[in-house]
Amino acid sequence: MGFDLGTTLQKMNILSDTDNSSVVAINLFVTLLCACIVIGHLLEENRWMNESITALFIGVCTGFVILLISGGKNSRLLIFSEDLFFIYLLPPIIFNAGFQVKKKQFFRNFSTIMLFGAVGTLISFVVISLGAISLLRPMDIDLEIGDYLALGAIFAATDSVCTLQVLNQDETPLLYSLVFGEGVVNDATSVVLFNAVQNFDLTHINTTVALELVGNFFYLFITSTILGVVAGLLSAYIIKKLYFGRHSTDREVAIMMLLAYLSYMLSELFNLSAILTVFFCGIVMSHYTWHNVTENSRITTKHTFATLSFVGEIFIFLFVGMDALDIEKWRFVSSSPKMSISVSGILLGLVLVGRAAFIFPLSFLSNLTKKSAHEKIDFKKQVTIWWAGLMRGAVSMALAYKQFTSLGHTNVRGNAIMITSTITVVLFSTVVFGLMTKPLVRFLLPSSKQLTRMISSEPATPQSLTVPLLGGEQDSLNDLYGQNITNGQASEASGVGQNMPRPNSLRMLLTRPTRTVHYYWRKFDNAFMRPVFGGRGFVPYVPGSPTEISVRHFPEELEKAARTLH
Amino acid sequence: MGFDLGTTLQKMNILSDTDNSSVVAINLFVTLLCACIVIGHLLEENRWMNESITALFIGVCTGFVILLISGGKNSRLLIFSEDLFFIYLLPPIIFNAGFQVKKKQFFRNFSTIMLFGAVGTLISFVVISLGAISLLRPMDIDLEIGDYLALGAIFAATDSVCTLQVLNQDETPLLYSLVFGEGVVNDATSVVLFNAVQNFDLTHINTTVALELVGNFFYLFITSTILGVVAGLLSAYIIKKLYFGRHSTDREVAIMMLLAYLSYMLSELFNLSAILTVFFCGIVMSHYTWHNVTENSRITTKHTFATLSFVGEIFIFLFVGMDALDIEKWRFVSSSPKMSISVSGILLGLVLVGRAAFIFPLSFLSNLTKKSAHEKIDFKKQVTIWWAGLMRGAVSMALAYKQFTSLGHTNVRGNAIMITSTITVVLFSTVVFGLMTKPLVRFLLPSSKQLTRMISSEPATPQSLTVPLLGGEQDSLNDLYGQNITNGQASEASGVGQNMPRPNSLRMLLTRPTRTVHYYWRKFDNAFMRPVFGGRGFVPYVPGSPTEISVRHFPEELEKAARTLH
Repeated sequence: MGFDLGTTLQKMNILSDTDNSSVVAINLFVTLLCACIVIGHLLEENRWMNESITALFIGVCTGFVILLISGGKNSRLLIFSEDLFFIYLLPPIIFNAGFQVKKKQFFRNFSTIMLFGAVGTLISFVVISLGAISLLRPMDIDLEIGDYLALGAIFAATDSVCTLQVLNQDETPLLYSLVFGEGVVNDATSVVLFNAVQNFDLTHINTTVALELVGNFFYLFITSTILGVVAGLLSAYIIKKLYFGRHSTDREVAIMMLLAYLSYMLSELFNLSAILTVFFCGIVMSHYTWHNVTENSRITTKHTFATLSFVGEIFIFLFVGMDALDIEKWRFVSSSPKMSISVSGILLGLVLVGRAAFIFPLSFLSNLTKKSAHEKIDFKKQVTIWWAGLMRGAVSMALAYKQFTSLGHTNVRGNAIMITSTITVVLFSTVVFGLMTKPLVRFLLPSSKQLTRMISSEPATPQSLTVPLLGGEQDSLNDLYGQNITNGQASEASGVGQNMPRPNSLRMLLTRPTRTVHYYWRKFDNAFMRPVFGGRGFVPYVPGSPTEISVRHFPEELEKAARTLH
Repeated sequence: MGFDLGTTLQKMNILSDTDNSSVVAINLFVTLLCACIVIGHLLEENRWMNESITALFIGVCTGFVILLISGGKNSRLLIFSEDLFFIYLLPPIIFNAGFQVKKKQFFRNFSTIMLFGAVGTLISFVVISLGAISLLRPMDIDLEIGDYLALGAIFAATDSVCTLQVLNQDETPLLYSLVFGEGVVNDATSVVLFNAVQNFDLTHINTTVALELVGNFFYLFITSTILGVVAGLLSAYIIKKLYFGRHSTDREVAIMMLLAYLSYMLSELFNLSAILTVFFCGIVMSHYTWHNVTENSRITTKHTFATLSFVGEIFIFLFVGMDALDIEKWRFVSSSPKMSISVSGILLGLVLVGRAAFIFPLSFLSNLTKKSAHEKIDFKKQVTIWWAGLMRGAVSMALAYKQFTSLGHTNVRGNAIMITSTITVVLFSTVVFGLMTKPLVRFLLPSSKQLTRMISSEPATPQSLTVPLLGGEQDSLNDLYGQNITNGQASEASGVGQNMPRPNSLRMLLTRPTRTVHYYWRKFDNAFMRPVFGGRGFVPYVPGSPTEISVRHFPEELEKAARTLH
């Protein structure tokens, strides 16, 4: 909603008539969002479909209907604005990613994630840029060197939402955290690359400029991370200092949301990588702030962030689908359909090659550093990771619009071809590759619940009430008593809350190289950070905080009361 | 955030430079919102202040700083847009009002609320319009007849937020529900009146036009209500049919939010009263839909709606404060400061008189229909209700902007005077009357916890865990077994969950005239509505729904585990 709001806000006239079109647009969009959610729910058990593809389909169909109604003039009610995308839709999605990430897994695989996300994206960027220069230049499309480099950044941005919907965080924790982590770092890297390409003077490329680019990249990476961490710690400190013992849930939730958003916008203001900032803000908030608020606030924030992210994602796919049929940009292309098809084909091929060019070599490198077989990425997993990053989505679209349009209109032939090719690649990869993801993952990774279920956050049956709790807690227990693990007491400690034997995780624990770093971090965290900023187990206990207790038991008792009435 | 977004969206250029001003504006606004929340929290125990006044103060101060920095050119970063107000800020506030209202109290006092909210607002509108015509016309401000009528509608719209923050829903349930209910109906009535004044041809006023106006008013009232009820029931039906037994909290929360918003926008689309629609949608959703979702969704929706409403209110006051110093509109006024002051004084006087003109007579009328002394509105309560509606707030501002500005600029002298006078009245009434509210309410209504605490939703001490639960449940118990009350078994039934004797509520129950209507409604509700749409006690019990149980006990166990670690 609100894409067309621009014009509305400009007019600022009487609500009733002038902005009727924007009211219609909002109505249509909200209705379509509801339809997507309901249909997505109904198709959940389906073998091929997922929510993204459903939204894309509905978007394309709606675009087609609007096209028919408007007599072939228009397929969209709202103009795609990459500002709206970057200022309103992306922040909740990325923040939620950081907020819900299993920090343990993420930091355990940090080096591999950075290798794939940063170095890999850079390789992909170079391959696609060089490929575009050598293959597209002879085709007589008037693009400059900056455009080719921008193409590299645009098509280096993956969209792993599809695959993540299929992978199971509990069944394949290593794979999930790699795909997930790479996705976020990849988003940040490609946006930083894109901005770098746009800002630097690219007519004279030499070693100095290249070094400056690299230096700039690391500067952005570090400062953005620091800003996110500071914002997260600030929220933890404020809530711990001010709100202790009070029960104003609204204030807590509001402060958390506002500070998260503020971190994103501050980063945007300082021209840093806002994606990275808000991602790390999410991680810090879930580690400290979330434990300082009341239980109601915890449940509320957790689900609100997830819902916002969920709706944002559907909205984007719906929109991309609707925008795909926009007639204006196809007009230029219709004169030379062959060229458009071949450009799309070339770009799609470059995407496939560019990704293969780093996944397999970097996996090999990563495997060299790992001793345990369970930490190595076998060939099947490499193929899965490769596949997971083939989809191109909203970030690519937004960057393409930024580079190739002015005012949302595509009136230069070269630009129109690039926009339509981007749409073709996004649609094709999301739909065709997306549809094949579920079957492929099931083929490559047959369900292995018994073997790899390690840190299950949800109980399989209601009977095992305490299992997930202590299973989740266990990691930190192990770390707190890290010294005990070596003399064998750990198996006893883990046995407390875990019914099934866990030889894999124990062996991993003993052999993983990051253990020492992590151990000292936990010591520092427990000795300094948590006492100051709060966090699990470090929030002073409020004896019998009434709101918490009453609300927790309230609906349960209500249900009982209701049942006895019958 | 986003007021200036209009221009941003129009440009749709590169994010980095062009819309830097809007990024700055969003940053500033989010920071100020955080500041308001923190300061509001710190001043909670203060004798005079409340959140609205804090936000107004901060807004004025910020406006002053911006004015100094910009060298007296500008006091605001964002242009006030009544579209943004009506499309984004008002819906969550009104929806939350309906969602959190104590339906029992609201419907028990429905006739009095409608009397005050609809008839009273109409009286106020007539008094202020006539007063403005007779007092302002001689002052040589070039206003048309439509402008005077619009003034009536603008200053008939009250803002009872301030008083509601002071009144206690548990201590004075009758008063709270009257002030609260009147506030919502008043908002709807004044907006409908305002639209009617704008749309009708007012050059030839005769009986037909007047009758049409009245007919139009009732048509709007009834259709808007029906639309809201239908939207609410639809959400209940969808969630009950589709989501039973599943645990996709995100989908449930998303569907609830989207359908609530959709009801508002649909009403806007059909030119109905969107405020009424979304208010009744909120009531229906809290009665049916809310009981059909998982416990996590219940907690999430309840607190999310409250938070959105809370932030929206602060945002509005912050904005009004910031906008008040806008230099452009004061320029016209500075040439004739006396006139501006006298216009503001006249309007403020008319507000006081217009409200007194219906509160006291209508209270007298309402008291005639009540037999029990506890249901009558005594003089002290009448004064409180009168006082509660003296504040003028965001609705008045938004309507005034709609009537007297074009493109947010005030370039006609008459219009500029009207805008500045509105701002003066809003600031004066909110700050001066607002500051006096807490002391006045304490003076008029000394705390009477023991006497009137009837339906307490929160326990006073953690020991009395089941009291609020059964106390809250009691109303419906009484209604289900309504026939028992007459033969004296009710006192036993109420005794179950209530420690203190409740002679007042029992006597009320026996004497209230709406009892029969309510009894048949309950019968219908239980026999037909709840089996179809769900609701308290009518949602099939999911044995051991895992998400619910695990999350409910999770943090409690965590705290325990954490404490044992020390």
